[in-house]
Amino acid sequence: MERRSGDNVRAVEWADNAVRLLDQRALPQKIVYRTLQDWREVRAAIHDMVVRGAPAIGVAAAYGAVLAARAAFSVQRDNWKIAYDIACGDLAQARPTAVNLMWAVSLMKQAAAVLPDGVDPTARLLESAQRIHADDIAANRRMGDFGARLIETSDAVITHCNTGSLATGGYGTALGVIRSAFSQHRIKEVYADETRPWLQGARLTAWELVQDGIPVRLLADGAAAHLLKRGGIRWAVVGADRIAANGDTANKIGTYGLAVIARYHGVKFMVVAPTSSFDFSIPSGESIAIEERSTQEIFEIGQHRVAASGADAWNPVFDVTPAELIDAIVTERGVIYRPDTAKIAEHMQSKIQMP
Amino acid sequence: MERRSGDNVRAVEWADNAVRLLDQRALPQKIVYRTLQDWREVRAAIHDMVVRGAPAIGVAAAYGAVLAARAAFSVQRDNWKIAYDIACGDLAQARPTAVNLMWAVSLMKQAAAVLPDGVDPTARLLESAQRIHADDIAANRRMGDFGARLIETSDAVITHCNTGSLATGGYGTALGVIRSAFSQHRIKEVYADETRPWLQGARLTAWELVQDGIPVRLLADGAAAHLLKRGGIRWAVVGADRIAANGDTANKIGTYGLAVIARYHGVKFMVVAPTSSFDFSIPSGESIAIEERSTQEIFEIGQHRVAASGADAWNPVFDVTPAELIDAIVTERGVIYRPDTAKIAEHMQSKIQMP
Repeated sequence: MERRSGDNVRAVEWADNAVRLLDQRALPQKIVYRTLQDWREVRAAIHDMVVRGAPAIGVAAAYGAVLAARAAFSVQRDNWKIAYDIACGDLAQARPTAVNLMWAVSLMKQAAAVLPDGVDPTARLLESAQRIHADDIAANRRMGDFGARLIETSDAVITHCNTGSLATGGYGTALGVIRSAFSQHRIKEVYADETRPWLQGARLTAWELVQDGIPVRLLADGAAAHLLKRGGIRWAVVGADRIAANGDTANKIGTYGLAVIARYHGVKFMVVAPTSSFDFSIPSGESIAIEERSTQEIFEIGQHRVAASGADAWNPVFDVTPAELIDAIVTERGVIYRPDTAKIAEHMQSKIQMP
Repeated sequence: MERRSGDNVRAVEWADNAVRLLDQRALPQKIVYRTLQDWREVRAAIHDMVVRGAPAIGVAAAYGAVLAARAAFSVQRDNWKIAYDIACGDLAQARPTAVNLMWAVSLMKQAAAVLPDGVDPTARLLESAQRIHADDIAANRRMGDFGARLIETSDAVITHCNTGSLATGGYGTALGVIRSAFSQHRIKEVYADETRPWLQGARLTAWELVQDGIPVRLLADGAAAHLLKRGGIRWAVVGADRIAANGDTANKIGTYGLAVIARYHGVKFMVVAPTSSFDFSIPSGESIAIEERSTQEIFEIGQHRVAASGADAWNPVFDVTPAELIDAIVTERGVIYRPDTAKIAEHMQSKIQMP
């Protein structure tokens, strides 16, 4: 696949008739690729966060569906869709919050529905998965250009979690905007929250930006308010795991706090996500299920126990930023300023703009 | 020294003619006491954060001054104050932000000034240091009672960093209020920010509260906004490293962000600190020097490298919470509601209240 300069990383690929994932748990210490032949391994890899980031999970699940079709066909040539649909249902439930996962699997189910029984579906479904992947990268590049144009020249922007090539099919959502803004000389550097408990910022965003030669400065999540008070930063730029019909946005824990302090300091807040991140079945963020993961993630850092024994912990993985704190949602279709239900509905109907 | 139930930890003590420190870098994995015979070791222990927490640093430095006087007298009986004053100057500079350090050393210098040459000053100066220590514990108990009375019955409070027995002569400032509030059945549990980068919350606050049987639940610093949105918490309770004449408060990095999100959610914000934390030489927080520590603290957690190589980092240790975000400052003299320069000046003149 074609690559832009400053975009050297791919987290998910189809290679040698298998799904190849860059194991994000091992980064940045080790660069380990895992080659998966079985869709169950893909489901486990999504659950165990070998691959993470809502769009990347969607792409991985799409390729996982190809593996599921191939296996189902090898067992039951004339009835492969039964096992395939069950596998798709399982893949869709590997993580609860990211809506792109359900969206990608649903596309793969639709693609299979029109295929004939008795004919090997692997090649056709692979085409579908590769189209999902290529469309994601193309969407990210468009978002990068739309979003970068909002950023007047400033010293830096701040971001949270990882929303880059590692979190998507490639190029990234919020990091795509940052890549575009940097290449257009609109910003000089990126402040990246380290993003406890999983340290996506310190481990992944920093690693990815270093690969691409974009200066990155890490900070403790709690230091962001002090940074924004100091000045020099006009935008906070983040991704989204799911966006409700009114613009309320679920994203990595800590995003909501960043939005509150951004508003307090007059720093603008940009959410960058493909339209596949919208979930129109939920009117507002109040209905978004928030995944809670093991308290071990708080007690430990990189498998080393840091917390005192006997304490309890609370480990929500996402939070919800209300639309009223969001200055712009950037999708592959363009920009929604000060989002609300009406503007988002209109955006989805609109002709696609050229960036 | 007398202990209240639910107050079982001492970080600094004078024992066997030496300063005994509980090494807070080793907690909670190991309980290591260090016995220091030389004031230079005390200075190094303060700098290297064997002992931390503004009031505890002050107490440790006071005992360190006793060691300095003993050593100076053993070398120059008739001129011991020259070396003593130099040592005090050095002790006062071991950490830059905590004003209690300067305050305690200044008391020890005053105590020495009235002593005769040619007579061993150790016993007299030890009395002075022990008075500073005992006064700190007594002040903390008074603050605990004043502060607890502000807390209407609620599920829980949230705190940041460690402000407990480990951070003070004993009982604690913000954790003293929490101890009192828990013993009065005003709260059921404590949410403690883990407090990156040094993890004082996960390592120290959790450990100390577990020792005392107070239920504690750790969370990532970035999860606090989501917690406050959920409800059940009416107060955030924190300590202070230095308070300007107008009430602007320097405290552990992350405190300011917590104050901003507390205000956004209608959660009240309490600063608990002895009057020795006020620095009337600075009119507002803008003049407070903010210590920046090594970027290694961001790159590493417990000596394990977590961040990607090639990234930079920014590691301010404190931030400043403006007085306008503070609902109450609690000192050993009582409560200053909605603090400002005039109210603080009046508070310092007022007769000491009984809690």
